[in-house]
Amino acid sequence: MKALGQHVLVEFYGCPEEVMKDNHLIEKVMNEAAKASGATIVGSHFHTFNPYGVSGVIVIAESHFTVHTWPEYGYAAIDIFTCGETIDNLLAFDYMKRHLKPQNTSTIEMKRGQLQNMFNKNPQGQAKVTSVPS
Amino acid sequence: MKALGQHVLVEFYGCPEEVMKDNHLIEKVMNEAAKASGATIVGSHFHTFNPYGVSGVIVIAESHFTVHTWPEYGYAAIDIFTCGETIDNLLAFDYMKRHLKPQNTSTIEMKRGQLQNMFNKNPQGQAKVTSVPS
Repeated sequence: MKALGQHVLVEFYGCPEEVMKDNHLIEKVMNEAAKASGATIVGSHFHTFNPYGVSGVIVIAESHFTVHTWPEYGYAAIDIFTCGETIDNLLAFDYMKRHLKPQNTSTIEMKRGQLQNMFNKNPQGQAKVTSVPS
Repeated sequence: MKALGQHVLVEFYGCPEEVMKDNHLIEKVMNEAAKASGATIVGSHFHTFNPYGVSGVIVIAESHFTVHTWPEYGYAAIDIFTCGETIDNLLAFDYMKRHLKPQNTSTIEMKRGQLQNMFNKNPQGQAKVTSVPS
C-alpha cells in the first residue's frame, strides 16, 4: 500500500542515566541522527525539564524527528516521521542507538496518509518539493 | 498496561483545499487545540513549504503535538503525544476536526513507554513535574 509518509515509533529502554540526563548530548544526537539519515533540518525546539528530562522536536523538510526522555526510567520515546524516498530511517536509528546506548529497543513502523484513502487521488502539482523560510 | 505516554496518530482525509493551504489557520488551530486539551505550550516551530503545505511541531510540558499537511490531497497527519493524567486528547481532536473539516478521519491510539518494559521500575524522584526555560 502506497502512502505519503513513513513513521517509525522507537522505544529505547535501559539507557544509562547519565546519558539520559545530558540534555545537550540528546539534542546533538537527534540533530546528527537527522543529518545521518539524509534529512534537511529546517527548525527545532528543545525544552529542558526540572530536575531533568528533555523534550525535543526537529522539523525537517521531509516531516519531523521528536524525542522525549525519562532519565529516572532510562527511557526515551523517539519518533521518526519522513516522506519521500530520500531518507534512510535506519541510519538515523543506528546513530541514535549507538549514542544513547539502550539495553533494549522496540520499533513500530507505520504508513501515514495511505493513498487509497485520499479523496483527491490525482492532484495537480506536488507540494513539499522545495522549502522556504517560515 | 501502564505506560508513561499516550500517543494518538490522527489522519484527516478530505479536508477543504483552502483550509489546508491556510498556514496561519493551521498553526492557530494546532495551538488552540493544544490549549483546549489542557496542555501547557512551552515552544513551537512551524515551517511553510513552497508552493504550499505546512509542517508544525508544538512542544508541550506533557510531550508534543505535530502536524503535516498535503493540501493537494486534502490530507493532514497529526500526532498528539501526551503524558500524565491531565490532558484530554479528545478535546484537542474535536477542536481540530471542527476547524480543519475532514470528510473522513482515522485515529490510532498507542501507549508509549510501557512500565513492564522498564529496567528501572521504581525510580526515586519523578521528573517532568515542573518545567524551566530551555
